[in-house]
Amino acid sequence: MVINKLIEDIKVKKSPIVVGLDPRLESLPQEIIDTLPEQVTMKDLADAVLTFNKGIVDAVYDLVPAVKPQVAFYEQLGLEGMRVYQETCDYAKEKGLFVLGDIKRGDIGSTSKAYSKGHIGKTEFMGVEFKAFEVDSITINPYLGDDCLKEFIDDIKTNDKSMFVLVKTSNPTSKQLQDLKVDGEEIYKKVGDMVEEWSQQLKGNYGYSPVGAVVGATYPEELKTLRDRMPATYFLVPGYGAQGGGAKDVINAFDDNGLGALINSSRGIIFAYKKKDLPYKEAAREAVLEMREDINTELEKLNKKYW
Amino acid sequence: MVINKLIEDIKVKKSPIVVGLDPRLESLPQEIIDTLPEQVTMKDLADAVLTFNKGIVDAVYDLVPAVKPQVAFYEQLGLEGMRVYQETCDYAKEKGLFVLGDIKRGDIGSTSKAYSKGHIGKTEFMGVEFKAFEVDSITINPYLGDDCLKEFIDDIKTNDKSMFVLVKTSNPTSKQLQDLKVDGEEIYKKVGDMVEEWSQQLKGNYGYSPVGAVVGATYPEELKTLRDRMPATYFLVPGYGAQGGGAKDVINAFDDNGLGALINSSRGIIFAYKKKDLPYKEAAREAVLEMREDINTELEKLNKKYW
Repeated sequence: MVINKLIEDIKVKKSPIVVGLDPRLESLPQEIIDTLPEQVTMKDLADAVLTFNKGIVDAVYDLVPAVKPQVAFYEQLGLEGMRVYQETCDYAKEKGLFVLGDIKRGDIGSTSKAYSKGHIGKTEFMGVEFKAFEVDSITINPYLGDDCLKEFIDDIKTNDKSMFVLVKTSNPTSKQLQDLKVDGEEIYKKVGDMVEEWSQQLKGNYGYSPVGAVVGATYPEELKTLRDRMPATYFLVPGYGAQGGGAKDVINAFDDNGLGALINSSRGIIFAYKKKDLPYKEAAREAVLEMREDINTELEKLNKKYW
Repeated sequence: MVINKLIEDIKVKKSPIVVGLDPRLESLPQEIIDTLPEQVTMKDLADAVLTFNKGIVDAVYDLVPAVKPQVAFYEQLGLEGMRVYQETCDYAKEKGLFVLGDIKRGDIGSTSKAYSKGHIGKTEFMGVEFKAFEVDSITINPYLGDDCLKEFIDDIKTNDKSMFVLVKTSNPTSKQLQDLKVDGEEIYKKVGDMVEEWSQQLKGNYGYSPVGAVVGATYPEELKTLRDRMPATYFLVPGYGAQGGGAKDVINAFDDNGLGALINSSRGIIFAYKKKDLPYKEAAREAVLEMREDINTELEKLNKKYW
């Protein structure tokens, strides 16, 4: 099961880290910009993004188990961007990485099914199967309720895929909706329960299921509550680094064995060159090493060594 | 403003209807399937979908003000599908239609900004502007709160675009999350208030703003409550037809002047050929005429003539 393989790779690489591949155009390093022709087309830009992404993957693939391309940054480059999204995913996959497409899809049942086919399943027509986009795992928005989520479960089982459902996001106004209290309990806990129900049905070797949850690093107390409440659900934790969270903030996302959490950093790694006097690949590699050290030190202090 | 233009077209065509372009492969009519070669590729399938969509647009463009392609059904055809998504949007636009991309995107601030650029704005790089995808309006998922929504406002203002935010969806389990009560009031009302706040700031000629809401036809009582509560917000109402809603169910979405609602039907129109002994274009046209008659009769009974 893909979640078992992810956990094993986390242990081998001593690294519960996922690198976010969010190629913000305004932050691309000079050495990438230098490859562009004078009259830039959308295709040139997309190709430059691909070159940049491959550079990052090359720099970190032996240090981290996973990458997470954020599809919005590819959609803004249109069809060329979507091509490069898939080529980035394929390249990372070839390097043995777990590829998490941060697509935050979700709709009514039959429409969610189409999203599922498009990203973790297969599109079938008169007995012939086609692949649209393909990643190991995707992020899902739960606002439409359970008949949205359940449409992804078949493909998760059949094709050995995974999903992470938004529970408590890392942004400042996540509280507007997610923290509203129902019978004394916040909405995000209700959503957490909904996710954990699916997780319980699909547990693998390490007690974790391919149905995970997104829980932001910027809310450490919430992380702790949810970790206790969702024992079978792996957490994808955004918000470390650029969004303000540190190792102390994310530590609550881990279980007693130091498992249960995949910590994301995007800008802090891929654009680390801005703060370091190094080319972007070396800077990214150094940033990953620092982040790994930061998190592992904290886990070791708490006797949560997973390696 | 695009919302004014939409309302004017609704009046001229006597038709508060948006046709959902959800090309479910298993429902494509024989005359489209006959155009496919023996060994079908993804490109063939996507081209067939485009031919089908153009046929629908040709059949109904003089009868309705708007179409709504559901992007999931294009994403499941990969890059070729996304190409055909945009070509469908462009074709409908050429025919004078309001094009609503049903993409249900939404993320943390800076990522939402990238979605906005990708679908209703422009992508900028070193002073040069590029267009990725382009439609008049998009649907947005509000689970991440207001700093997600606000990222779309700039492009709405600058490029004369629009958005419809999910408030109360038409599916059976929408109640799981959306109907939970906070201080005696359902979540969807809180979300409605959040949307109405933006709407109030952007009102146009008819008292409506380009910030709209998605409210399902399958919940008529909720429609009534929200109509009163959100006077500046146009409603996109899915669920008529195949999902079980009829004219009596959607009538509450309209204001006293018979405005305020755009009723969606997808399967009920584009695949009407299944229930009628007619080629798919003629069947779609007939289905639109029936739907228009159905809704307008009900509005007339209630003295809500808008034409």
